[in-house]
Amino acid sequence: MSINFAEKTEFQFIETVRRRYALQKIGDDCAVLPKDSKTDLVITTDLLVEDIDFKLEWTTPEFVGHKSLAVSLSDVAAMGAKPVWAMLSIGVPEKVWKTDFVEKFYDGWFALANEFNVELIGGDVSKTSDKIVIDSIAAGETKRGKAILRSGAKAGDLIFLTGELGGAAAGLRLLEKGERYEKSKYKNLLLRQLKPNPQTEIGQILGAKNLATSMIDSSDGLVADLNHICRESKVGAKIFDDKIPDQFDLEKFHSLFNSSEMVNFSLYSGEDFELLFTVNPKKKFQVEKELKKHQISQIGSVTPNAGIIELISKGKSEILQAKGFRHF
Amino acid sequence: MSINFAEKTEFQFIETVRRRYALQKIGDDCAVLPKDSKTDLVITTDLLVEDIDFKLEWTTPEFVGHKSLAVSLSDVAAMGAKPVWAMLSIGVPEKVWKTDFVEKFYDGWFALANEFNVELIGGDVSKTSDKIVIDSIAAGETKRGKAILRSGAKAGDLIFLTGELGGAAAGLRLLEKGERYEKSKYKNLLLRQLKPNPQTEIGQILGAKNLATSMIDSSDGLVADLNHICRESKVGAKIFDDKIPDQFDLEKFHSLFNSSEMVNFSLYSGEDFELLFTVNPKKKFQVEKELKKHQISQIGSVTPNAGIIELISKGKSEILQAKGFRHF
Repeated sequence: MSINFAEKTEFQFIETVRRRYALQKIGDDCAVLPKDSKTDLVITTDLLVEDIDFKLEWTTPEFVGHKSLAVSLSDVAAMGAKPVWAMLSIGVPEKVWKTDFVEKFYDGWFALANEFNVELIGGDVSKTSDKIVIDSIAAGETKRGKAILRSGAKAGDLIFLTGELGGAAAGLRLLEKGERYEKSKYKNLLLRQLKPNPQTEIGQILGAKNLATSMIDSSDGLVADLNHICRESKVGAKIFDDKIPDQFDLEKFHSLFNSSEMVNFSLYSGEDFELLFTVNPKKKFQVEKELKKHQISQIGSVTPNAGIIELISKGKSEILQAKGFRHF
Repeated sequence: MSINFAEKTEFQFIETVRRRYALQKIGDDCAVLPKDSKTDLVITTDLLVEDIDFKLEWTTPEFVGHKSLAVSLSDVAAMGAKPVWAMLSIGVPEKVWKTDFVEKFYDGWFALANEFNVELIGGDVSKTSDKIVIDSIAAGETKRGKAILRSGAKAGDLIFLTGELGGAAAGLRLLEKGERYEKSKYKNLLLRQLKPNPQTEIGQILGAKNLATSMIDSSDGLVADLNHICRESKVGAKIFDDKIPDQFDLEKFHSLFNSSEMVNFSLYSGEDFELLFTVNPKKKFQVEKELKKHQISQIGSVTPNAGIIELISKGKSEILQAKGFRHF
């Protein structure tokens, strides 16, 4: 089949490439490969490009190092896997080499890697003519056949979410408005954008104890990510507006953002790197018990209406459109 | 230890990053990881950046796709491994998306992948602000503990090389002088630069039959690559000028290049992606028999003089300096 790439938007383009060329192992946060008789290897790669995924005037080299690994560890967590090793390719222009950027970048990368005992096994270092580029590769392990896919959700399953949403998008909006980390009183929101934390511990618990029927990380935005699960699982979803945990207090932030912006942050904005997962109702109490030290919210349930995502807000039902979000 | 990156040249910089941060698994063409009780996994990543590693006005999208995979398959071959799977991250600017570049790039990539039954298992697609960037990841398998490292050469071993050297550098020089592939009568030299072929078959034979004590691919230039083996194996090497197979006929090309340029091509220029390997003298005849369908040359031998590379030319001996070559 011949595809006319020129007619595609960015999001469609990515989907088109994935569909055309690849391939049975593509369609989850990580590829799953058999390792030995007891273990599967899950592996992911993420490309981060200066001025697309990060801006040097908004962040620090350490934060860029941290985020490069964090986005890949989030993919590993979304498979219910324990992270094991990583590779890192970095390309920097001459003018950046002459600074301590790379040293501080690696400091940030290793601080996160050491937290989860992730070993750097290889990589590449290259020159670029202008911008910094980073390719992050991370791998983890699950018990054989136990990686949590996007395709396992069943009608009647409960939908859970870790943490809170919208913080990364609010942080991005603040940065765009000129807010800078050093002097900010909104450091917690800026850190959600600049230095996100992967939900590695929760992912491992859900994987090791076989508690989730499907999982994805919230990197594209709640509705888009839920849509990925619905498409792969051939189901629908119903979610409740008042159950979705916003990261910010509407009252406190109404001077900074208008309320439609804030709804968009929670429903449609990505990069929070929380975990969205579905649970058989029989395992609800076990999930709540195993994750009692962590913030999790039951935000809705899986329906048999394939491809339909319904939002219940103040007693009214609304069908949501999946909007793709990828880059700022 | 604090490193002042600003004082480093490009080559030293890469070595510094490798030394400071990493790490026992770094130092070969691929990292080696245990897979199961009978198998090791070898894995490599290579970053290719527009205008550093390739120029669009010199090449075709299909050649760039081919070369992206070829450089990684060459690393896999240098471990004596059979390639199995690959991942591919690509970042392209808006203006390139609007063309058929990506479609043709993947065509070139898949043509080579299919030749060796390499499966694409994942990847990432991103936007960039200006230049194309590609990160290529490839993995292969060897029998457990049988990956061929750089560190296994012993004094008395014979040094072998596949194919011929200097073609990629000559091709590059021609491109710099304005030669273009479409109309060129030197297509074979240009192809060595633009569309190199990994020595996948030879690498697998040497690995499966346990024939080489050390191996590397000739990506940095003969002397630099031999120096990597000598450093990792704590040995020296003696090579014979008249045994080194040049890709071009001096007579035929003396109007295009001067002779010192041509010596530099064969000794110091990289990207030929041939295999350089050492063999216990007892296995010399078995190597020649197993590889009788392939062009291989015995170019010298391993000496106990750690770190010293000696070139014998017209009966005279000369100690060579390792010059690093990485990018054009």
